[in-house]
Amino acid sequence: MTGPEPTATAVQIARAALSRLLEPSDLTGLALVRCAGPVEALRIATGEVRAGAPLERELGQLLAEEAPGAGEAGVSMRGADSSGPAGPRLDQALGRWQPRVADLAPLRDLGTLSRLGGRLLCPEDPAWPTGLEDLGLGAPIALWVRGDPATLIPQAGACIAVVGSRDSTSYGAGATSELAGGLVRRGYCVISGGAYGIDAQAHRAALACGTGPGVTPTISVMACGVDRYYPAGNEDLLRAVARHGLLIAEVPPGSSPTRWRFLQRNRLIAALCAATIVVEARWRSGALNTAHHAAALSREVGAVPGSIQSANSAGCHRLLREGSAVCVTDAAEAAELAAPLGQSLVTEPQGPRAAHDGLNLEDLLLLDALPVQRSGTPDSLAKVAGLSHSTVLAGLGRLQISGLAESVNGGWRRTRSAAG
Amino acid sequence: MTGPEPTATAVQIARAALSRLLEPSDLTGLALVRCAGPVEALRIATGEVRAGAPLERELGQLLAEEAPGAGEAGVSMRGADSSGPAGPRLDQALGRWQPRVADLAPLRDLGTLSRLGGRLLCPEDPAWPTGLEDLGLGAPIALWVRGDPATLIPQAGACIAVVGSRDSTSYGAGATSELAGGLVRRGYCVISGGAYGIDAQAHRAALACGTGPGVTPTISVMACGVDRYYPAGNEDLLRAVARHGLLIAEVPPGSSPTRWRFLQRNRLIAALCAATIVVEARWRSGALNTAHHAAALSREVGAVPGSIQSANSAGCHRLLREGSAVCVTDAAEAAELAAPLGQSLVTEPQGPRAAHDGLNLEDLLLLDALPVQRSGTPDSLAKVAGLSHSTVLAGLGRLQISGLAESVNGGWRRTRSAAG
Repeated sequence: MTGPEPTATAVQIARAALSRLLEPSDLTGLALVRCAGPVEALRIATGEVRAGAPLERELGQLLAEEAPGAGEAGVSMRGADSSGPAGPRLDQALGRWQPRVADLAPLRDLGTLSRLGGRLLCPEDPAWPTGLEDLGLGAPIALWVRGDPATLIPQAGACIAVVGSRDSTSYGAGATSELAGGLVRRGYCVISGGAYGIDAQAHRAALACGTGPGVTPTISVMACGVDRYYPAGNEDLLRAVARHGLLIAEVPPGSSPTRWRFLQRNRLIAALCAATIVVEARWRSGALNTAHHAAALSREVGAVPGSIQSANSAGCHRLLREGSAVCVTDAAEAAELAAPLGQSLVTEPQGPRAAHDGLNLEDLLLLDALPVQRSGTPDSLAKVAGLSHSTVLAGLGRLQISGLAESVNGGWRRTRSAAG
Repeated sequence: MTGPEPTATAVQIARAALSRLLEPSDLTGLALVRCAGPVEALRIATGEVRAGAPLERELGQLLAEEAPGAGEAGVSMRGADSSGPAGPRLDQALGRWQPRVADLAPLRDLGTLSRLGGRLLCPEDPAWPTGLEDLGLGAPIALWVRGDPATLIPQAGACIAVVGSRDSTSYGAGATSELAGGLVRRGYCVISGGAYGIDAQAHRAALACGTGPGVTPTISVMACGVDRYYPAGNEDLLRAVARHGLLIAEVPPGSSPTRWRFLQRNRLIAALCAATIVVEARWRSGALNTAHHAAALSREVGAVPGSIQSANSAGCHRLLREGSAVCVTDAAEAAELAAPLGQSLVTEPQGPRAAHDGLNLEDLLLLDALPVQRSGTPDSLAKVAGLSHSTVLAGLGRLQISGLAESVNGGWRRTRSAAG
């Protein structure tokens, strides 16, 4: 092996090539990689060799098990149903892979990333994020990672997604800052999509609250190649994310963001995180897509409430109303979603202790019956409170000791501190 | 029978007297009424006659079944446990009823209410609200009702409680107006507690949106006698509620509001309504007490979300977070809570239809691959989209028919309407 990336293994090179050949979640291709291994899968996918009958059988079985309803593009589509033999599906797949074969240049792609300060992370790598396993057959072929080689993707339990709409309000921006900042201060990595609005604010707040060796404050999961800064207006921010955190993508350098890649990118965000928090989202919003991916992966979903007048909170309220998300109002509540079951990180706000706290019911009735200005006899107190004479006398003794009642001229009244 | 209320029956007179003798939810007294009937129960409660052994046995059985943990005051208290024989409990109860016996004047109380334009509603009356049955033994002895005799308490399915904190914000006031107004326009009766803040706003909005013969826009459930306007600052409002709706209370005219009566009043609001909506509430708020009563009665509970910065929404968010309430953002969603199961009253907001809505996945990939300015050949489109040549050609045909793609100089591009 020669070229700009002399240390790349055959497996890495094959995965680099496959990540350009296959769109994200191309289940036929991913099944082929699973059955044949990446090196052999690449030779078959490029048409260099044909799949033998045993491999086709294995492939057919895997697809029938894991992707029974996948359509022509090899991805699960509602309503589609083509759980037939693998032969036709593989032929269809070869048809859509063929146009890209001529342009494959994995060593060039690896070299590009290497020059930008990045690496290709493969499932064979010990640093491969564990959360992606939950995607099953849909796990990415590889991740193109841009950032300091010492910066790692934390395990899913330490990652929380903070996502939301591009056209965020100042309320949403403030809530995002508080959440993302508070999460980083608690040691979490904030993962988002690098878009305008909530995503950008989440990255920004995370970077402001914790950078340094061994810390991954934030990761931006891109729908395009990590060599590109998209959207252009976030270039400075994404540069900073690459410097102090990571930019990652499953599509190779040079790839454009498409609607399909945005939707598939969302599944990566969901899978990498123990919890996904939606800060602001309209009734139809890409952030809801991330939330649905998270729910499908049995990840926790949180939604930040907001004004019922704000269209930008309508999507969050929708999630809450449908029971698809937990109400999250601060970083502690967000962190609790990612915490192991039963671990409470939230301290309940303690209101000022009221004078009547802890009184038994009879003493409470008596306290309410005590006059504030004049005074009352035990007889009148029994009548007003609806208590027996003996209960009133015993209660007056207790209230006097607690400093809530005082005796004046043979009558009883509430002390000033107990009034109100 | 003579006096200002010549039409009152013995049962009504007995219930009027008992409602002064017993505090709300005095379970021993209520059990006595259940077992002996109101007339005989009054004679026993006032000490005129003694309960015989068979009645004591029946009473003991009823209390053991329905109120095993009731304390001295005869009401359920956490931690209390006195499920012994009924004799001692009845003796204790007689002790607390005795001080009030001398002041009983049911005919005077009935006369007072009659002069104010009101009546005593008893469980024997066909107009007795059905929802109160769910309170079991804790159902009130009677209801003192002030308002036009033709104005009825609607059945629970047509009543929705709109409650919240006294120190409401302008956001809460606005949300309350929208909810309460919208509910009345949909034919619901809005029930609340007549307090400052959210309660007052709910009554106000209800009155503004629907009054007239046969309509009960709003009912205020009072913790004091319905002859009093409490709080004083709401006098004009409560007068208007009495004129166009109803003021109701289980305590007789002249009764003061006490903490206990406020808490018990909340159970009536919850029981009278199919759903309780909390608009604004602090972390500890009386409105949450109403919500908990509603939940305990298997009524629906809704909470209006708000800013995470607002302490006045913290109680609502708490309900949402604990899963004790459904997120409610408008009157339609509030009404849906009260609607029979499965009946959806909410119309989902329809966003503007996007150009790519309804496309199959392949055509979506192709659309995203189509250049906007220049044009692309089927070859290059297959490569960019990751589709086979035949799929591209068929897809271009479909996109052209839909007006999303156009052919220019042998190449293809997106039409202007499909861009963006």
